[in-house]
Amino acid sequence: MPVTLPDDLVQPDGGRIVLLVMDGLGGLPPVGSDGRTELESAKTPNLDRIAKRAALGLHVPVMHGVAPGSGPGHLALFGYDPIRYNIGRGVLSALGVGFELARGDIAVRLNFATIDGDGIVIDRRAGRPPDEENRRLVARLREGVTAPADVQVFFESEKEHRAVLVLRGKGLNADVTDTDPQETGVPPARAVALDAASQRTAEVLDAVLGSAFRVLAGEERANAILARGIDAYHDYPTFRERFRLNALAIARYPMYRGVARLVGMETHPVQESDAASVAALADAFAEYDFHFIHFKAMDSRGEDGDFEAKVEAIEAVDALIPDIADLEPDVLIVTGDHSTPATLRSHSWHPVPIMIASNWCRPDAKAKFGESACRQGELGIFPAMSIMSLALAHAGRLAKFGA
Amino acid sequence: MPVTLPDDLVQPDGGRIVLLVMDGLGGLPPVGSDGRTELESAKTPNLDRIAKRAALGLHVPVMHGVAPGSGPGHLALFGYDPIRYNIGRGVLSALGVGFELARGDIAVRLNFATIDGDGIVIDRRAGRPPDEENRRLVARLREGVTAPADVQVFFESEKEHRAVLVLRGKGLNADVTDTDPQETGVPPARAVALDAASQRTAEVLDAVLGSAFRVLAGEERANAILARGIDAYHDYPTFRERFRLNALAIARYPMYRGVARLVGMETHPVQESDAASVAALADAFAEYDFHFIHFKAMDSRGEDGDFEAKVEAIEAVDALIPDIADLEPDVLIVTGDHSTPATLRSHSWHPVPIMIASNWCRPDAKAKFGESACRQGELGIFPAMSIMSLALAHAGRLAKFGA
Repeated sequence: MPVTLPDDLVQPDGGRIVLLVMDGLGGLPPVGSDGRTELESAKTPNLDRIAKRAALGLHVPVMHGVAPGSGPGHLALFGYDPIRYNIGRGVLSALGVGFELARGDIAVRLNFATIDGDGIVIDRRAGRPPDEENRRLVARLREGVTAPADVQVFFESEKEHRAVLVLRGKGLNADVTDTDPQETGVPPARAVALDAASQRTAEVLDAVLGSAFRVLAGEERANAILARGIDAYHDYPTFRERFRLNALAIARYPMYRGVARLVGMETHPVQESDAASVAALADAFAEYDFHFIHFKAMDSRGEDGDFEAKVEAIEAVDALIPDIADLEPDVLIVTGDHSTPATLRSHSWHPVPIMIASNWCRPDAKAKFGESACRQGELGIFPAMSIMSLALAHAGRLAKFGA
Repeated sequence: MPVTLPDDLVQPDGGRIVLLVMDGLGGLPPVGSDGRTELESAKTPNLDRIAKRAALGLHVPVMHGVAPGSGPGHLALFGYDPIRYNIGRGVLSALGVGFELARGDIAVRLNFATIDGDGIVIDRRAGRPPDEENRRLVARLREGVTAPADVQVFFESEKEHRAVLVLRGKGLNADVTDTDPQETGVPPARAVALDAASQRTAEVLDAVLGSAFRVLAGEERANAILARGIDAYHDYPTFRERFRLNALAIARYPMYRGVARLVGMETHPVQESDAASVAALADAFAEYDFHFIHFKAMDSRGEDGDFEAKVEAIEAVDALIPDIADLEPDVLIVTGDHSTPATLRSHSWHPVPIMIASNWCRPDAKAKFGESACRQGELGIFPAMSIMSLALAHAGRLAKFGA
């Protein structure tokens, strides 16, 4: 009998799960030292208290050696194969700015760029315009760009030189090449369909971009746009369908709310502060089976290359832990979506510390939450895709497999 | 060149392997404590002596978070993918009662049930009849039920309300829905074929069940039967074909002999006691390359929720170890098919302690056989499917892969 695990084992009832994501949590000791990582350097009495009653381990978000973006990192945490469900950059950007994508929409990441009188790209980022200038340019595009009558066109600001284009219409397919040539000194490329089903999309995109070039012709710097990451918004099986979970995402940044919406979670509008996120969790706690709560600062400070600031960001989350632990979730998972070592100033491939606290662990009284302790933990080093199986198991939500 | 590992590397000769399975071996400390598991609480001087010359680790039977039944748990130990070779409940029940299934047989798990005058199910277990009553009912079915002329029908007693039906005939396929509605207050469902190839099976099953209802019509409580877990007995590649091993299973319970037969092992009829099992192993030792010996009590006491009794069951197996070690198998593997923590009173998903003793280990003189030591062991936390590869390697039965 064919079977899909863990989905086919999921029960309708069980314990309440909190998945707490400290973005970019994993780290490295300073280069050349045998010292401690950011997490191991931080004073985290509250996380350490939970570690002593938790199962510890390290998860590999995609595969050994692969540094994931935020999209794949979170999809893996949510139990979705990040390779099979590879999200195009256009879709991620649209989700990131909070655009409500509908199934079948074609999303395209845009750069404002500068071309010279011969149509040659001389700056792929149009001098990185400030966000206010970006919004003025997008307003002009919204007003002036024309498209075929049966296609709706949406432009959205992102940041600096970045914007998003969404095409909505019947019979659009996304196998279309980028117009961004990825270098200066050449003209923008034409959008080329890679299959017959995408022919119409390439034509529409060329028409829309042509119209946009005419609208922007008088601009001093942002007189062109380059398109890339063209992708369709696909039909994902939802969290409710797969895991029978009524799930809420509490994330201050639209990108993470977007990925959560991809898998059918509801999203909370809170944005003010991490403390407000925790208050939102407490308010909504009883109404959902599953809460995803996201804290961003570790990743940002890691990308800044600021070891000490990342340590402080971790300590700031630690201070919020008691208010979460007081809610007494049946299963509390603390982890990151990937590592962002300050020494590397970027997302990295290093396995990510994780702990799963429930009544059904083999605890280690000496454990502290950190990479070294997690390496010795009962979960071992395992694929992030298994986290949801473990969460469901610890919550008593999985039936036995086979007799 | 396509290659299947480890199968394509297997050599015709090598050392003798004993796979000793302590059913439900893995455990948890009492809830809320950071203390010892059942195995760590047991006094096991003989197992500990072997641990000091063994490779230790933890195996994951199916996948993280998934608690396996005995079928998948043992298939994984035997090196068979438990998801690919998913066994339907009907087949497992037939194997469990010792029925000699032939390839192509359709096996069905039956419940005796009670229906009212309108044919509505009012008790899905017919008041859990005693085993003697079950055997009387099965005798009536064997005598009275009629079937199409080209189909052989077998009924077998299991326990309480459980029985097994086997259909043997040409052109039967098993994609047929259950007639057990899984709830009371509704009539039994009809058997529905999910594909054209199973149409005939659905018709035969409906005819046999109709005949059974007429036979049981006068019974006070067990006046109906409900069918589920309908599955065909498939053709498994055998242990001899895959591993060139002449294998014997010594297991007191028919379920485990059944799973061993699935993969082509011979089975020993011993049933009296665990000591008799060890004597049988000693007697047959020289005649087989591979011995699977199974001890059940750990699992039963875990399912009872009796921590101390599980500890004693483990100690009782420990007392038998010297007689097994004295046989000097080239490879001795001690493990469980899954965890059954007394605190959970059920099979669980927790990784299972394993040790592999041979001359080719990296031993740890301080090691004792238990979850904590295994977590630190040289095997790490690894899929149960790899155990047979390791067994063959330690027995000198695997050639080098590639030049």
